Amino acid sequence: MAICTVYTTQSLNSTCSVSKPAKPQLGFHQKQVVFFTKSRRRSGMSSCGSSVITCSAGEQRTVVIGLAADSGCGKSTFMRRLTSVFGGAAEPPRGGNPDSNTLISDTTTVICLDDYHSLDRTGRKEKGVTALDPRANDFDLMYEQVKAIKDGIAVEKPIYNHVTGLLDPPETIKPPKILVIEGLHPMYDARVRDLLDFSIYLDISNEVKFAWKIQRDMAERGHSLESIKASIEARKPDFDAYIDPQKQYADAVIEVLPTQLIPDDNEGKVLRVRLIMKEGVTYFSPVYLFDEGSTISWIPCGRKLTCSYPGINFSYGPDTYYGHEVSVLEMDGQFDRLDELIYVESHLSNISTKFYGEITQQLLKHSDFPGSNNGTGLFQTIVGLKIRDLFEQIVASRAATPLEATKA
Amino acid sequence: MAICTVYTTQSLNSTCSVSKPAKPQLGFHQKQVVFFTKSRRRSGMSSCGSSVITCSAGEQRTVVIGLAADSGCGKSTFMRRLTSVFGGAAEPPRGGNPDSNTLISDTTTVICLDDYHSLDRTGRKEKGVTALDPRANDFDLMYEQVKAIKDGIAVEKPIYNHVTGLLDPPETIKPPKILVIEGLHPMYDARVRDLLDFSIYLDISNEVKFAWKIQRDMAERGHSLESIKASIEARKPDFDAYIDPQKQYADAVIEVLPTQLIPDDNEGKVLRVRLIMKEGVTYFSPVYLFDEGSTISWIPCGRKLTCSYPGINFSYGPDTYYGHEVSVLEMDGQFDRLDELIYVESHLSNISTKFYGEITQQLLKHSDFPGSNNGTGLFQTIVGLKIRDLFEQIVASRAATPLEATKA
Repeated sequence: MAICTVYTTQSLNSTCSVSKPAKPQLGFHQKQVVFFTKSRRRSGMSSCGSSVITCSAGEQRTVVIGLAADSGCGKSTFMRRLTSVFGGAAEPPRGGNPDSNTLISDTTTVICLDDYHSLDRTGRKEKGVTALDPRANDFDLMYEQVKAIKDGIAVEKPIYNHVTGLLDPPETIKPPKILVIEGLHPMYDARVRDLLDFSIYLDISNEVKFAWKIQRDMAERGHSLESIKASIEARKPDFDAYIDPQKQYADAVIEVLPTQLIPDDNEGKVLRVRLIMKEGVTYFSPVYLFDEGSTISWIPCGRKLTCSYPGINFSYGPDTYYGHEVSVLEMDGQFDRLDELIYVESHLSNISTKFYGEITQQLLKHSDFPGSNNGTGLFQTIVGLKIRDLFEQIVASRAATPLEATKA
Repeated sequence: MAICTVYTTQSLNSTCSVSKPAKPQLGFHQKQVVFFTKSRRRSGMSSCGSSVITCSAGEQRTVVIGLAADSGCGKSTFMRRLTSVFGGAAEPPRGGNPDSNTLISDTTTVICLDDYHSLDRTGRKEKGVTALDPRANDFDLMYEQVKAIKDGIAVEKPIYNHVTGLLDPPETIKPPKILVIEGLHPMYDARVRDLLDFSIYLDISNEVKFAWKIQRDMAERGHSLESIKASIEARKPDFDAYIDPQKQYADAVIEVLPTQLIPDDNEGKVLRVRLIMKEGVTYFSPVYLFDEGSTISWIPCGRKLTCSYPGINFSYGPDTYYGHEVSVLEMDGQFDRLDELIYVESHLSNISTKFYGEITQQLLKHSDFPGSNNGTGLFQTIVGLKIRDLFEQIVASRAATPLEATKA
């Protein structure tokens, strides 16, 4: 196995990319970079072959973020909020496979872990496994390629075509400033998990998931209530076995629950959302309300701020989550007016904004995104700001000590 | 009826006092100043007679504070805290009746409204009325004398001797900077009420009153549980009829309740104390926690502050009280250590301290006073600071517009 000289001597402080013929990526098969075929899977680092690797002289190494959630739980909205915080719009790779799952912005590349399915739809059917099952996913390749990108080396990543259910020819992923791996299993494999500089789990409660599916599949797609219930039930055992346990590893969990402001509410329109933030994570200082480390409940609606029914209720405090010390910020209810939003923002601390009202600006800018008026949008935006802050701190710390890796 | 020239032309902006022979006050009967005999009671202002009235040229007029509470409910502790905030110790008048109920400090004179009992102990017994009954109290004289003091004129105030149960000869009360009238009925009579620049009601719940009485009368004085219950029951109808209704007029109410931190607690040692502050009172801006006008609950004990069992719980929020808009600050639990106290103080706003830690300093200075480790001491001290602030604002406003009276 060939190890590139450039890699062994410079890659920790370099951004490298593989130059290749300027031809369309569709159907493009090239073996010079980290590959997804069986034979190379356990080879450790990239095989450079005879391709030309160019490395930039900067101190930057890709910062890797993991985002776990079930399908249809708002990952793509979250990604659009995250890239918006960094300033650019995220778009699919230009001139590539129109069914690519990748989104690229100036700073950030988001790859979908469905692309590491080792079994296509037919294969899963034949073997009787769901996409949630680790056996339907290629964690060796996932690890190798994420590691390569983190080390500044471009990879040829497969594409899982959600339309056809087949594995399409790969696309080149160049090392970005920030790589987000989003999907069902970003924290499942310990090796992949160790590559993450920050990890997030979107935890949608069964009640809310059910209400959302009814809204989408029944109202918009004409499915029956029974078939929706059956599809949720069918997914549940594998979800509980393989997806849900990942939340114990997350640095931040966004929990979405039914409101407690409306008795017996089952519409799932008003939400209670909890942002669970792990303590002691390098470059991540949890958001707090009024007094860090104490337990607070706050109804901002009162003499200075009037809110419409059912109002807004915040709470904040220390807790433990899977044995880890965490801080939890909770919002129940929704914003109806701009002044409610700016009022709440102005009372939160450690939100890593660059100017007064930045959260409000972000939520207003994307007011058409789902959840912009409630805790999902608020906390997704906050997590976006925290990731920007984390990224900037990592870059700054590398500039200060260029040869020291920040995460083992 | 003679009206002094000096009064009609200058008294609004003057502090006057009556000079009199330098002889002991005990048994001293002099009729030159506002008097307590029947014949002069409805004469309106003071009769100056032939005595010499001296008036200072300052803008100061006495600020009058009313403090209502049942007997044995901590009024005297409150008064000691209040005078301590102003810097001086409060003592009985020098050389006067040793059974005088009056306390005098540099700035403040505290008179006990029991001195306006129109019936002595025997008289009450004969007529079958309690001291709580308005018929046992002389509100005309109370009004006349408080008004005179407020207008800068010294009065000859009767003394109710708590030892003998008799009315002793009067004592001279010179107009102080601040006059506190404390007792059962400071807000009962509308005319007296209108003279108050600020009013406070100490509202001890029946459960706590009972626990305190058991502690004092049973443990310390050897009374039986039955006799204590009977004495409380006997007082209750008149208390409910004449004392309790005054709280609707109070600018601040300190409510003392059993703790909610210990299930089924009936020891009355750990207390839940509420400071109910009327909104819209001139020169009085209510204390708040974190965010003025919103609803907050706060457990300061957590990551930064560790507390012993059962901890400390604060809450704050807007409410209505007898139809008035109020803000309520509540503390349940008690301070065990200095750092708990200073931590809590540093998170309260609008407390009118003159330096960081002034509340803590006051509570430590008087750590032997009952309630220095709980909400009663904290809120009494805060009310003391608010009264100092109110006093200073009134003085400043009079200095700005010297001829304008601040309260009709």
